Amino acid sequence: MDPHILASKILEWVREDAPFGDITTELLVPEGRSVEAVIIAKSSGVVACVSDVARALKILGLEAAPLVGDGEEVRRGTAVMKLGGDARSILLFERTILNILMLLAGIATKTRKIVDIVRSVNPRVRVAATRKVVPGLRALVKKAVALGGGDTHRFSLSDAILIKDNHIAIVGDVEKAVRLAKSRASFAHKVEVEVTEPSDAVRAARAGADIVMLDNMSPSKVAEALELLKREGLRDRVVVEVSGGIDEDNVAAYAKLDPDVISTSVITMKPERVDMSLEIERLL
Amino acid sequence: MDPHILASKILEWVREDAPFGDITTELLVPEGRSVEAVIIAKSSGVVACVSDVARALKILGLEAAPLVGDGEEVRRGTAVMKLGGDARSILLFERTILNILMLLAGIATKTRKIVDIVRSVNPRVRVAATRKVVPGLRALVKKAVALGGGDTHRFSLSDAILIKDNHIAIVGDVEKAVRLAKSRASFAHKVEVEVTEPSDAVRAARAGADIVMLDNMSPSKVAEALELLKREGLRDRVVVEVSGGIDEDNVAAYAKLDPDVISTSVITMKPERVDMSLEIERLL
Amino acid sequence: MDPHILASKILEWVREDAPFGDITTELLVPEGRSVEAVIIAKSSGVVACVSDVARALKILGLEAAPLVGDGEEVRRGTAVMKLGGDARSILLFERTILNILMLLAGIATKTRKIVDIVRSVNPRVRVAATRKVVPGLRALVKKAVALGGGDTHRFSLSDAILIKDNHIAIVGDVEKAVRLAKSRASFAHKVEVEVTEPSDAVRAARAGADIVMLDNMSPSKVAEALELLKREGLRDRVVVEVSGGIDEDNVAAYAKLDPDVISTSVITMKPERVDMSLEIERLL
Amino acid sequence: MDPHILASKILEWVREDAPFGDITTELLVPEGRSVEAVIIAKSSGVVACVSDVARALKILGLEAAPLVGDGEEVRRGTAVMKLGGDARSILLFERTILNILMLLAGIATKTRKIVDIVRSVNPRVRVAATRKVVPGLRALVKKAVALGGGDTHRFSLSDAILIKDNHIAIVGDVEKAVRLAKSRASFAHKVEVEVTEPSDAVRAARAGADIVMLDNMSPSKVAEALELLKREGLRDRVVVEVSGGIDEDNVAAYAKLDPDVISTSVITMKPERVDMSLEIERLL
Amino acid sequence: MDPHILASKILEWVREDAPFGDITTELLVPEGRSVEAVIIAKSSGVVACVSDVARALKILGLEAAPLVGDGEEVRRGTAVMKLGGDARSILLFERTILNILMLLAGIATKTRKIVDIVRSVNPRVRVAATRKVVPGLRALVKKAVALGGGDTHRFSLSDAILIKDNHIAIVGDVEKAVRLAKSRASFAHKVEVEVTEPSDAVRAARAGADIVMLDNMSPSKVAEALELLKREGLRDRVVVEVSGGIDEDNVAAYAKLDPDVISTSVITMKPERVDMSLEIERLL
Amino acid sequence: MDPHILASKILEWVREDAPFGDITTELLVPEGRSVEAVIIAKSSGVVACVSDVARALKILGLEAAPLVGDGEEVRRGTAVMKLGGDARSILLFERTILNILMLLAGIATKTRKIVDIVRSVNPRVRVAATRKVVPGLRALVKKAVALGGGDTHRFSLSDAILIKDNHIAIVGDVEKAVRLAKSRASFAHKVEVEVTEPSDAVRAARAGADIVMLDNMSPSKVAEALELLKREGLRDRVVVEVSGGIDEDNVAAYAKLDPDVISTSVITMKPERVDMSLEIERLL
Repeated sequence: MDPHILASKILEWVREDAPFGDITTELLVPEGRSVEAVIIAKSSGVVACVSDVARALKILGLEAAPLVGDGEEVRRGTAVMKLGGDARSILLFERTILNILMLLAGIATKTRKIVDIVRSVNPRVRVAATRKVVPGLRALVKKAVALGGGDTHRFSLSDAILIKDNHIAIVGDVEKAVRLAKSRASFAHKVEVEVTEPSDAVRAARAGADIVMLDNMSPSKVAEALELLKREGLRDRVVVEVSGGIDEDNVAAYAKLDPDVISTSVITMKPERVDMSLEIERLL
Repeated sequence: MDPHILASKILEWVREDAPFGDITTELLVPEGRSVEAVIIAKSSGVVACVSDVARALKILGLEAAPLVGDGEEVRRGTAVMKLGGDARSILLFERTILNILMLLAGIATKTRKIVDIVRSVNPRVRVAATRKVVPGLRALVKKAVALGGGDTHRFSLSDAILIKDNHIAIVGDVEKAVRLAKSRASFAHKVEVEVTEPSDAVRAARAGADIVMLDNMSPSKVAEALELLKREGLRDRVVVEVSGGIDEDNVAAYAKLDPDVISTSVITMKPERVDMSLEIERLL
Repeated sequence: MDPHILASKILEWVREDAPFGDITTELLVPEGRSVEAVIIAKSSGVVACVSDVARALKILGLEAAPLVGDGEEVRRGTAVMKLGGDARSILLFERTILNILMLLAGIATKTRKIVDIVRSVNPRVRVAATRKVVPGLRALVKKAVALGGGDTHRFSLSDAILIKDNHIAIVGDVEKAVRLAKSRASFAHKVEVEVTEPSDAVRAARAGADIVMLDNMSPSKVAEALELLKREGLRDRVVVEVSGGIDEDNVAAYAKLDPDVISTSVITMKPERVDMSLEIERLL
Repeated sequence: MDPHILASKILEWVREDAPFGDITTELLVPEGRSVEAVIIAKSSGVVACVSDVARALKILGLEAAPLVGDGEEVRRGTAVMKLGGDARSILLFERTILNILMLLAGIATKTRKIVDIVRSVNPRVRVAATRKVVPGLRALVKKAVALGGGDTHRFSLSDAILIKDNHIAIVGDVEKAVRLAKSRASFAHKVEVEVTEPSDAVRAARAGADIVMLDNMSPSKVAEALELLKREGLRDRVVVEVSGGIDEDNVAAYAKLDPDVISTSVITMKPERVDMSLEIERLL
Repeated sequence: MDPHILASKILEWVREDAPFGDITTELLVPEGRSVEAVIIAKSSGVVACVSDVARALKILGLEAAPLVGDGEEVRRGTAVMKLGGDARSILLFERTILNILMLLAGIATKTRKIVDIVRSVNPRVRVAATRKVVPGLRALVKKAVALGGGDTHRFSLSDAILIKDNHIAIVGDVEKAVRLAKSRASFAHKVEVEVTEPSDAVRAARAGADIVMLDNMSPSKVAEALELLKREGLRDRVVVEVSGGIDEDNVAAYAKLDPDVISTSVITMKPERVDMSLEIERLL
Repeated sequence: MDPHILASKILEWVREDAPFGDITTELLVPEGRSVEAVIIAKSSGVVACVSDVARALKILGLEAAPLVGDGEEVRRGTAVMKLGGDARSILLFERTILNILMLLAGIATKTRKIVDIVRSVNPRVRVAATRKVVPGLRALVKKAVALGGGDTHRFSLSDAILIKDNHIAIVGDVEKAVRLAKSRASFAHKVEVEVTEPSDAVRAARAGADIVMLDNMSPSKVAEALELLKREGLRDRVVVEVSGGIDEDNVAAYAKLDPDVISTSVITMKPERVDMSLEIERLL
């Protein structure tokens, strides 16, 4: 993420967290006081976007250096980022920075956890995020997924066609919907379609879908759909994504079936808890 | 939350989710098509801000009526909100609305859960949120806490004095920090101070703190602090808040000790998963 | 485009066109005066986004009804939109609305013109826009292209991978760049690569590119590239886009060669001039 | 234009062009890689606002130095701006910067072309722009007009009174409209009125208009209006502007008639095509 | 002012006044409660922009009707605006609306006061505002000046040329500065120059200035400047503005000298105190 | 105030003051010209936020150094801030900076004046501001109050409970309102209530209000209320604020009665006039 864009987002969040300033700090910390501080992990996890945040903080007038690489695992006690500069600024920004870094690390950590399970079973299968993401932080959240080893999936409603149940209800039929979409969509975008029945997977693939999402199917139904696609000679012509109700407990069962992608909202909706705190190390 | 302010926030989030529109819907759903839809809970929980969102959606041109009261519990299958109007709009807004409602319901549900545990042990004790909140949604998140039965605590760095370890490190001493803050802060704001030792709780109370936060203390240390305060005749002069590492597993132990407030980031950082979906019910 | 989003864009543009109001109108037109007006084409062309603008103007308090369908051709004298309401508002918005409608009609008209040339030669070939677009109006401009019969191509840097000369210069090699991109990109996004030599087209296709853009090649070089791809059995595995220096004068020569897509910045950079004016028809 | 204001506009445009980042570059270009690049003209023209853009890019963290002066003519191959810094940033900003510089150079070039025709005929006559300008870039577009040798005319509805047909329709009469405006307008603003009949030019001048715009008149009608004004002794009391349907083909005919100003939307609506590209020169 | 633009400004101000809502009202006033209220003048003055504010409030969902005309004088007890609708909204907006209406009425009242003094002495002389205006409210403040009977003067640095001491210091000479400005400025804008010596007034007028501002001159020096201009036959060729240190106590002395305009920052910097309050009249 | 937040506010204000640039300066001052300038007080007063503004200007590319401390008194002729850098920037920013500094100094000066009166009578009593503040500048205005020696009071509707007449009208009763508020408000916020009768002060205090505001009472009624509170043993349990119609003429009479706080809108609504100007000292 461009550091100037992130810097302006951080300022906006700081304005939310301090509409009239940090009244405690302004009462107690003299103007012009400098400090050195460090952000420390208080639990283990995979950190994300630390270098992005550090670059943005430099634009905002602080010294800031990442002490671990993005996507790396840290343990309780690991120093994550070094900060220096005006004490009032650091205390004003503290909570906002921690809230972001903790959220993003939580997402990267949960992604890594599920990716590791899947890889141990079937290294070919990708783990992807969904659009079930807290509003306002989409770009960072998707980057955290990638740093955790996941696939970002589409970022928004504007970058890939995804035909869902409500669309099909209006168009009237899976095949018709896929054909319409293929003929009207830009050649630059892929066409994906969500199906809930194995037979519809075949019809979607035949109609030219680039990606077929098997939604809310049990493992046995997924197996049936994959089998049907193979039998019809369509398996290599589509990317098969499995989605719906998948979490760390059942993901291995799906991975074994050898779909191309498993997507789950768990990685963005139930991030691991990765705790961090900011500690002032030296008064200058 | 004022519905026009929320409406403009929703538009901003929709812009994030569809910077160039909902390309699938625009390809497949004819302009001018109207539908009726309903938002359904797919798991149980306490809903929050449904009426706020409905009011905002009306400003954005949709029919929208809450079907359950905010703060009420719903079960899998309960219809939460009725929607009507332009099909393209409804599908464009779908994910954004669901993401918000699910997050807020998750927070209200987790709050309720912890509040219920605390009340069963000690009905006098309040459960409060912290500022560990995802950026950009502060007002809604705090409202969800309140709807779940929790205390919002301060909203931001601007509405109450909270002297923390880093401030004390700079000022040099708990008592001095409290006295400085009391003399300089506006009479309209309370002064709270975070202490990690029972003896500091006494010193803070004596210096005039309105609220003393016992931070990261074990139950036995909390008990010791409360005992000390009583012995010094200070217990009634301060609000005692307990904080740090508290979750559903250990909150009862703290509640029994009879502090005034127990605050925990768990209610905003690890919301319950409350799933909802939007279903088109009728094509008009 | 969601009408509330467009309405807020229009307000922003009106603020640019009248930072302290429309001083002429405020001096001469009494408050509360109502009028009926009409937007008239003063030259022929294909109109675009008229219904979007009309919906947005309704949100801004005016009566507004499109009188022609988007994508339809109009002639000098055709009434394009009917407007009613407060005279001051209509005069304040006049220039902004006309500027947008004229620009978008100009783009749709030029697109249609080139699409018609291409179709007369080879109906299978798509005409696509590029990202050479005036900043701030991307979504509307792309929609105008679509209404003119063109393909929007990717909307932004975020919705498809397009490996260009500068990327290859940094990575060092076409094939390596394509392989890297294919392995790292999300499965939801296509990978396109720009090549300037026919042999590179083959290497790119072999490396797995979804789309190969033949950039700045003469028709004979394009023919050579297509021939090579066929010979290697790769023609059906990639979408072939031709781009660079193409306009109405030479597009037919390229279309005859049967690529899949011809993209040209002419449709957004040199729109046809479609003139419109707003005329007050009745004072109420 | 203040460089910080332009920098924030550029960031906004980059956000439009990359709502979730430049996914190609992020996949292929390592973080922290530095390059030197140059913007090169690929066709001849008059450049505009190069130094403004360079100053803004410095604020955004790049090295940037204009290599030609604003308002200077360049030829195919001329290096226009030197850039240095983070490769990812440069590639992210590339298209946005080129789109602006090409548009503004196109406007300056077209302005210069028309100014040159006019000067060769009558050096006293000014060539002015109109408000037919793409929304969102008004200040830069007007500056490009000035750099091309044109007169900006009023910037917006707020900086001069311009009484048009629709105003007169409401007020009922040219003279009455001018008198009303003169008495009510601030002394700091000029009063201009648009007339379509030579006799109205006289009435407007007599009523005190500072500027009379002869709108959509043929050259012979313009001559008649100027003659009438002279005869009535009013020629020196008003600035005479000629406008409507004027372009490079007929501007000389109007210039010969010796009005004070000729305004034309051609310079902003049909800019010359000035092509530029960004080339990476050195990997650091 | 366009009511949608004002509505969005009001929302922004309400967000400043209630970043996390109106916590008192939300605790005490039930959702959905409707009331009727009235804004009452608590001291006498000239009201301004009441109808603008009422129109904006309607957009924001309230019933709102002005009860006095803008520019009219009110007395203690006069009802200024009627309001109806959701009690929570009305209480949330109360202070913001009152703060604006009181400020604008204060400006209109002070303007009227000075205009009345001037008119009683010399009805031909205009009273004008300056740019000494609180930031963020320029358009409204200038409108209040006009409603009080004053001349808005230029709105901003973009709508008229005003050559001040610092410009002359850089250019080196009044005459040179005026000539440069006249030759370079758009024909649509007036050129004004600030002088501190009577002889410079003559030089400025001779160089072609449209307006000469006699800055910080005593009445006798102003008389001298006017006399000099007359003697040189320049008095009718320039608008003469007198400015600097003028207030209600000395304005008559200047008005008697018969300049064209007297400008004073007193009308925007020291508004009269016009008190208003909002009273709930009926609970519905 | 965080300097980056203030810098972006200043840019926004400059955009208001120069939507299309400072056309005078751009015509007359060559690009790249540097100057040194100084802001000078032209009347005496207490300066405020000079260091905040200087820090923000540095972010905006100027050299800027405060020459007096915030809260210090200056006299006519005192140099307040030193500025250096690009002449065009300094002239562009001049008026905006002066407008802010003059307003804030005016507020600090008036606050100091009233604080001095109060202290001379009763050093224990605080002077507090209200929310009668021009919109858009709340944080700076409150800081100016503090620098003048005043108490900011609550910043907004979100940081303390203040039960006013309209709330009581809806709830029906002072005591009920206070009890409701105390039970529902966060423990982090104080509960204040406005009363107009001495007996209500007692009822409010008994119901648990943290602060009782005696609104619009004459000194004798205030004395009665304080006496009643003492008699009931409640005086030490509440903060007593006196408000309504208080200014420099009558504040001493109230201060003598020994309330805790006297609040008055005079300090923000009728700031002292503190004049400043920017003078270019050296052309570089």
